[in-house]
Amino acid sequence: MDTSANSRILAREGSRDLCAEAARVAAGRQSAREALQLATAAADGPLCRHAYIRRFDATARATAAAIDAGRDAGAPVPPLAGLAVSVKDLFDVAGMPSTAASASLADAAPAAADCTAVARLRAAGAALTGHTNLTEFAFSGVGINPYHGTPANAATPALDATPRIPGGSTSGGAVTVAAGAAWAALGSDTRGSIRVPAALHGLVGFKNTQALTPADGCIPLSFTLDTTCAITRSVRDAVLLHELLAARRVKLRGRPLRALRLALPQGAGLLDGLDATVARAFERTLAALRAAGAEIVEVALPADDAPPQSSGQISSAEAWAWHRPRLEAHSGQYDPRVLARIRGGSGISAADYIDRLQARRRWIAQVEASAAGIDAFICPTVPVVAPPLQPMLHDDEAFFATNALLLRNPSVVNYLDGCALSLPCQAADELPVGLMVWAPALHDDTVLDVSLAIERALDGAGR
Amino acid sequence: MDTSANSRILAREGSRDLCAEAARVAAGRQSAREALQLATAAADGPLCRHAYIRRFDATARATAAAIDAGRDAGAPVPPLAGLAVSVKDLFDVAGMPSTAASASLADAAPAAADCTAVARLRAAGAALTGHTNLTEFAFSGVGINPYHGTPANAATPALDATPRIPGGSTSGGAVTVAAGAAWAALGSDTRGSIRVPAALHGLVGFKNTQALTPADGCIPLSFTLDTTCAITRSVRDAVLLHELLAARRVKLRGRPLRALRLALPQGAGLLDGLDATVARAFERTLAALRAAGAEIVEVALPADDAPPQSSGQISSAEAWAWHRPRLEAHSGQYDPRVLARIRGGSGISAADYIDRLQARRRWIAQVEASAAGIDAFICPTVPVVAPPLQPMLHDDEAFFATNALLLRNPSVVNYLDGCALSLPCQAADELPVGLMVWAPALHDDTVLDVSLAIERALDGAGR
Repeated sequence: MDTSANSRILAREGSRDLCAEAARVAAGRQSAREALQLATAAADGPLCRHAYIRRFDATARATAAAIDAGRDAGAPVPPLAGLAVSVKDLFDVAGMPSTAASASLADAAPAAADCTAVARLRAAGAALTGHTNLTEFAFSGVGINPYHGTPANAATPALDATPRIPGGSTSGGAVTVAAGAAWAALGSDTRGSIRVPAALHGLVGFKNTQALTPADGCIPLSFTLDTTCAITRSVRDAVLLHELLAARRVKLRGRPLRALRLALPQGAGLLDGLDATVARAFERTLAALRAAGAEIVEVALPADDAPPQSSGQISSAEAWAWHRPRLEAHSGQYDPRVLARIRGGSGISAADYIDRLQARRRWIAQVEASAAGIDAFICPTVPVVAPPLQPMLHDDEAFFATNALLLRNPSVVNYLDGCALSLPCQAADELPVGLMVWAPALHDDTVLDVSLAIERALDGAGR
Repeated sequence: MDTSANSRILAREGSRDLCAEAARVAAGRQSAREALQLATAAADGPLCRHAYIRRFDATARATAAAIDAGRDAGAPVPPLAGLAVSVKDLFDVAGMPSTAASASLADAAPAAADCTAVARLRAAGAALTGHTNLTEFAFSGVGINPYHGTPANAATPALDATPRIPGGSTSGGAVTVAAGAAWAALGSDTRGSIRVPAALHGLVGFKNTQALTPADGCIPLSFTLDTTCAITRSVRDAVLLHELLAARRVKLRGRPLRALRLALPQGAGLLDGLDATVARAFERTLAALRAAGAEIVEVALPADDAPPQSSGQISSAEAWAWHRPRLEAHSGQYDPRVLARIRGGSGISAADYIDRLQARRRWIAQVEASAAGIDAFICPTVPVVAPPLQPMLHDDEAFFATNALLLRNPSVVNYLDGCALSLPCQAADELPVGLMVWAPALHDDTVLDVSLAIERALDGAGR
């Protein structure tokens, strides 16, 4: 995919991201094979414990070798340049089972073919490194998996001795990127599953408008809300992965912050209950954006509906519909917390579900009207830094309260059918904090453009 | 809207349709006022008894007068040329209540504004003549309305002394067109509500792909299936009305029958149980199409699902969701047959509804694959000619059996999210019989193109 027209906007000095590494491979300053060896070593290291459910080492090596051989023979190097990309264990990879990190699918047959998302990444030169761990069936924002084990947050050990949650449901995907085992992680986002682990790891998570990326060959949680997307190290990597997954060109405008009007969403509680680290990082970020000339206004979200809770009703009903034929034989193999949430959908009537979808349509129209005069909304992705892992493992009350808190802000965007990018905004000595830049459906290119400007401003502010 | 590039394809000698009449007005050979007076006289006549629920005579006259004055002053005559167009009593017309032909809405407030469909017709120069009768809330294919009275079929008295059903739910709309009280009737089609009355009246009914026309300001039956569309006198009038309602240009290719491959659908019972008149007309039509060079093949529809029944489950669940908050205060004002069908949606769970929508998606993909090599499917619109009205009024068993029979074929296309045109194929001395030309979603232009060719062939065959 030609991205040359955007290259000025995407230039980023000294970055250690996929775009930079791919440029090195293309220029012959790094071999794909060596890059993959470094990723594989990281995957074998302690930070990646429980991150992978199954590894594709042999095929990844073959891909990297083919890229190097092609380049040596004068062939153009494809955009992903034989670099490591991990795949959430929901997406079909030819010859491998997809098991949703669930014991109930441990005997699943190998997929006959790549799903469209995986096929697009493979065609773009990805070395697919393996299927990553997740909350069973993608059903929580915390990231715990009692069957396979829970990967600890891979970004926080450098700052803090306490093992912390990875965030979910794309827990393993975020860990592989943060630990250097992958340059990007293919995942899904139903109520925050890309953005929560990205935020808690200091990574970038872009949840595009659902309709732009393919969902075939992916074990569903909620067909109304599930979005195929990726975790990356930088906003420009998010642009690249989105262009590949959506098979479309992003139109960047490269607008500076002084040309942008950003909105703090009011009335839905998205700025409430911030912990000290998040509050400090968010205030500092707002100050940096204002200093760079951004106009920051307040825009009220419609108050008569409670979007995060509402999207949970949609996903519960849809998950129950998908799982109920499996439960007679397999319910004993489910994580009891996941099973409880799935069974929550069993009592929902068609009329209640339909009312919710209709209320959603009205709410979307209201938000779209409210957002007409702004470029994007901004708020913290999650109101807290990654909580310690240990209390979440056995205390159901703490687990469900934390889960609700983690999903509170991201799920608003799924309910909106919108698009959102989480990018890191903490200082070097702080635990990771995500800033969420978001907008209604099909404003993906604006969200990416705004996010590039914010990322640049925060880099310049010495974050 | 400029239709000049299609004009050769749409030329039709000696036709008494809207296009011909609009051309006469534009050429000064007829005044809009006189045309409207003829329509108004027809509306006052016996064929139109119970066809209108409320008339808009004064505003219709003002529209016609304005068109004449404009033409006299040298202004271009708009496409609908001040000619009579009726509106199903579901669509908002500024200053008028919309009551769905239901006693429960008799006190509805006047609409503040035209809905988009009505606004588009008005902007195109329609003289809107009134709100037409329907099965209460559009809830059957028979066309009976015990509260307002049932209009008898307006096409059959010339052939047969027995009062016959009009077909529904757009009963009044079809009667106004057949009786000369309107050149076209705006209506809706959820499981056949445009095509059934069109077929039983010897008229043209085109149900476009749902997404192409606006549904705002229309009392819903099923938001998944409801389609805004029209009944007309000819296929070229259907093209014109669709272009106006969809605000888009139809691309006609003018292909002759010898270039077309038409398919008889197998495996879903759509060719079963034809009465003698329908069987004779259908066989004669197939012979005429073959004689004109059309290739007629057989294509199997997927058999593992029962589409007509399935779409009923979708519409019942959605209707229940819409009506249930109204029933506490108003259930005593509903037609008991309609109420029984609405209450049928109350026991449907969200999971059953979701399963149905997912099964529908899979079925649509299968039909789309099956239809890849053909231009359109053809079958009778309904398997019987219009049954006598009297037995339907009080015999519930006969009513529900007839309703199921009338909706059997048309509802397949709503379940398919497809498009379909019903055009008359009976001989001059036969009761009306509809031929349904249909295809998957967004093949509207092909269906119209094929229908033009078939209409021409049947005209030439001396129908």
